[in-house]
Amino acid sequence: MTNYKQIFQGTAFTSKSHTEIQILKDYLFCINEDGMIEQIVSPEDSNYQPLMDTYQGTHRFHPLAEGQYFLPGFVDLHVHAPQWAQSGTALDIPLYDWLNTYTFPLESKFSDLDFAQKVYDDVVSTLLANGTTTALYFATVHKEASILLAEICAAKGQRGLVGKVVMDDPEQTPDNYRDADTHTALVETEEFIIAVKDLAKSTKQGVYPVVTPRFIPSCTDQALEGLGQLAEKYDTYVQSHCSESDWAHSYVQDRYQKNDAFALHDFGLLRDKSVMAHCNFLSDEDADLFVETGTAIAHCPISNAYFANSVLPLAHFHAKGVEIGLGSDISGGFSPSLFDNIRQTVMSSRMLEDGVDTSLSAEDRGVPKSRVTLHEAFYLATAGGGESLSLFIGRIQENYAWDVQVIDTRLPSAKMPIFHGDEDLHDIFQKIIYLARPEHIREVWVQGEKVHSR
Amino acid sequence: MTNYKQIFQGTAFTSKSHTEIQILKDYLFCINEDGMIEQIVSPEDSNYQPLMDTYQGTHRFHPLAEGQYFLPGFVDLHVHAPQWAQSGTALDIPLYDWLNTYTFPLESKFSDLDFAQKVYDDVVSTLLANGTTTALYFATVHKEASILLAEICAAKGQRGLVGKVVMDDPEQTPDNYRDADTHTALVETEEFIIAVKDLAKSTKQGVYPVVTPRFIPSCTDQALEGLGQLAEKYDTYVQSHCSESDWAHSYVQDRYQKNDAFALHDFGLLRDKSVMAHCNFLSDEDADLFVETGTAIAHCPISNAYFANSVLPLAHFHAKGVEIGLGSDISGGFSPSLFDNIRQTVMSSRMLEDGVDTSLSAEDRGVPKSRVTLHEAFYLATAGGGESLSLFIGRIQENYAWDVQVIDTRLPSAKMPIFHGDEDLHDIFQKIIYLARPEHIREVWVQGEKVHSR
Ligand SMILES: [Zn+2]
Ligand SMILES: [Zn+2]
Repeated sequence: MTNYKQIFQGTAFTSKSHTEIQILKDYLFCINEDGMIEQIVSPEDSNYQPLMDTYQGTHRFHPLAEGQYFLPGFVDLHVHAPQWAQSGTALDIPLYDWLNTYTFPLESKFSDLDFAQKVYDDVVSTLLANGTTTALYFATVHKEASILLAEICAAKGQRGLVGKVVMDDPEQTPDNYRDADTHTALVETEEFIIAVKDLAKSTKQGVYPVVTPRFIPSCTDQALEGLGQLAEKYDTYVQSHCSESDWAHSYVQDRYQKNDAFALHDFGLLRDKSVMAHCNFLSDEDADLFVETGTAIAHCPISNAYFANSVLPLAHFHAKGVEIGLGSDISGGFSPSLFDNIRQTVMSSRMLEDGVDTSLSAEDRGVPKSRVTLHEAFYLATAGGGESLSLFIGRIQENYAWDVQVIDTRLPSAKMPIFHGDEDLHDIFQKIIYLARPEHIREVWVQGEKVHSR
Repeated sequence: MTNYKQIFQGTAFTSKSHTEIQILKDYLFCINEDGMIEQIVSPEDSNYQPLMDTYQGTHRFHPLAEGQYFLPGFVDLHVHAPQWAQSGTALDIPLYDWLNTYTFPLESKFSDLDFAQKVYDDVVSTLLANGTTTALYFATVHKEASILLAEICAAKGQRGLVGKVVMDDPEQTPDNYRDADTHTALVETEEFIIAVKDLAKSTKQGVYPVVTPRFIPSCTDQALEGLGQLAEKYDTYVQSHCSESDWAHSYVQDRYQKNDAFALHDFGLLRDKSVMAHCNFLSDEDADLFVETGTAIAHCPISNAYFANSVLPLAHFHAKGVEIGLGSDISGGFSPSLFDNIRQTVMSSRMLEDGVDTSLSAEDRGVPKSRVTLHEAFYLATAGGGESLSLFIGRIQENYAWDVQVIDTRLPSAKMPIFHGDEDLHDIFQKIIYLARPEHIREVWVQGEKVHSR
């Protein structure tokens, strides 16, 4: 019998397909030294009892208590780490004011490494406490602070994908917050990539550098071109904002006479490892280009309500085969929880399907077949995020990382409304996804290591 | 100097108007034996120091710790108490199936008082833990269990307004879940009213019977007429569902050739003490009738995303002078938290203003001037709810009940992102409203009594 590092026992929920969940009732999950799920054993399997005989009662055996369940850890595809310091504020003002009055002045403060340490420590801990085991981060333009964010992810055990932001165009960025010049932006990005790749060598769960043009309007053509070359040279992840709002969409049309997707592609920025935030205004041709290049969408439903002037036609793009995951978009979105973003994904999709304006007839109000079910939204937050990053994460399945959250439905301070011992596990799953809050998340594990408990 | 029962010291947020909050920084709040706020004293007031000298250090003096704030308790204008048992489930299916496959079979079980006790104990405790100090409840058709719900509110210290549901039309209700007949429905409603009025005599915070036709489709004309007469005879509150969805709206048009509002008014059911849930499809004439009669809207933004086929044109109705508060609509809405409903009010209003369908031009997509700010949504959950019920609740103001929640922004397990000691109190208010979860609510007081702490 293999010598496992740990064996976990309990009931797990994981995606079987885009639309269906799989319930692994009372299974054993066998984790190896690398933190990978090497074997999953059902109670009916002939291996079950021998494994129990060997491990039960040892410090390697972790049974869940009654009323506790495993979920995959969440994959958050879009977080502005520095903006955690202003999360929840100023969402009643227009994007331009929000950026210039609040966001850019805040981000400029991350030249101060003490301040950066305080905020980054807190945002990584907070996301872990919310069940987010992998996060794709925008940092700021500052190389040192961006490296610090990667180091904090590494130290706290979160799988962090981190980008030093590039914004070098003086026309579209404030004097006190931009890269010194295009050359410096590219040199510092390259130094950042090398530093994070070095850090990765000693980081079990993985930490990755990400080429990160803020969005087309804030970058010169030279910067975009240079970043595309760096992404290819180092085979890195790429992230940016794409066709987010009416304004951004038409800005790019004016500048290039094409949509963001084709403009980014011309600069070599749409790759299998690319994740683009928002994407509400993608055309069908843009979506086809995403499929062709393996580029994924980070859907940010809460933030979109404030800044995207629309709802992402998610079901339509999913049907076309585009990879999609979820992003909290802190602080355009106020919530650090992907539970909240799963719920908003479902609600926003219903508003797109049924429409919103009561002065229109039901036939003219909405866009039929737009709804996304709870199971589909759960898929996006877990397996869909993993696929978007081409990593073996987001599923409780053999050969995937042991990235999980343990949910307690019977917490005395916040008992979930489960009143029958024999309640259907499908119902319990739905109650968890709709009602779980951070206090229900008792443990979080990344790559076989416990990184949060309460 | 008056002999106060308690004096609280700290910073409070409360509504000054529909659109503005008032910040009472380091005030004293003097509570009398009846649990009313008798005096509010600013640190600059000459009464401040004498009060401190008298009360500080005694068991009657309650200072907040650093980082803690007072908010008014929330007023939830629409809760189906029995449906707490299925909260979060089955929201992916159509209303008809949701009612017949899930909701009616569940509600029929409340003939069993043991089951009712379990669920009602839990929902009242849960709402208190979520900061809801006053709730307007639908119970079920069962008189005994409905009285039990009122008794549980009374015992736990929540201000409960409770209705025994009437649904007597065999055409539109299932065989195993309806009133025995119209006569019985009215007799039992009257007995229920008398029992709860009797209970109210010994209930400090108030408990109130509510005349509760489920909605027009489930009631006969005779029942609706009889309920209108009972509401007048006993001067009670009235609640129902009104113009919620395309289906409900057109059903009533077919039956009466008029909208719900005028039909309900004909039966004497629109009164100053009436609260109607949803109301998405009110016409301007309907809204005028609401203003004229003093009828209020319970806006249920989470539930509406699933079942109302639209977004309530809230800003429009508010501008016309209709009283509006918020409802969780458990379990059409999954969340027991009015914080969640405040957030969804803002987001849904933005989707109405900007529109949702990216295939339309920006000009054709939305309904201009529909947005509701965070301050307005906070107003709805507090002062607006109080006005809807014509009770002196929902504000931290002299001659209002001491119904408050104490929010801790520095909880080690869930610290809010406040990184400067001198942060603006307006920003702190917004962070609280967008980020607070039940664990941040350390104490809840109703009518001067502590009813929840953790
Ligand atoms: Zn963003
Ligand atoms: Zn309802």
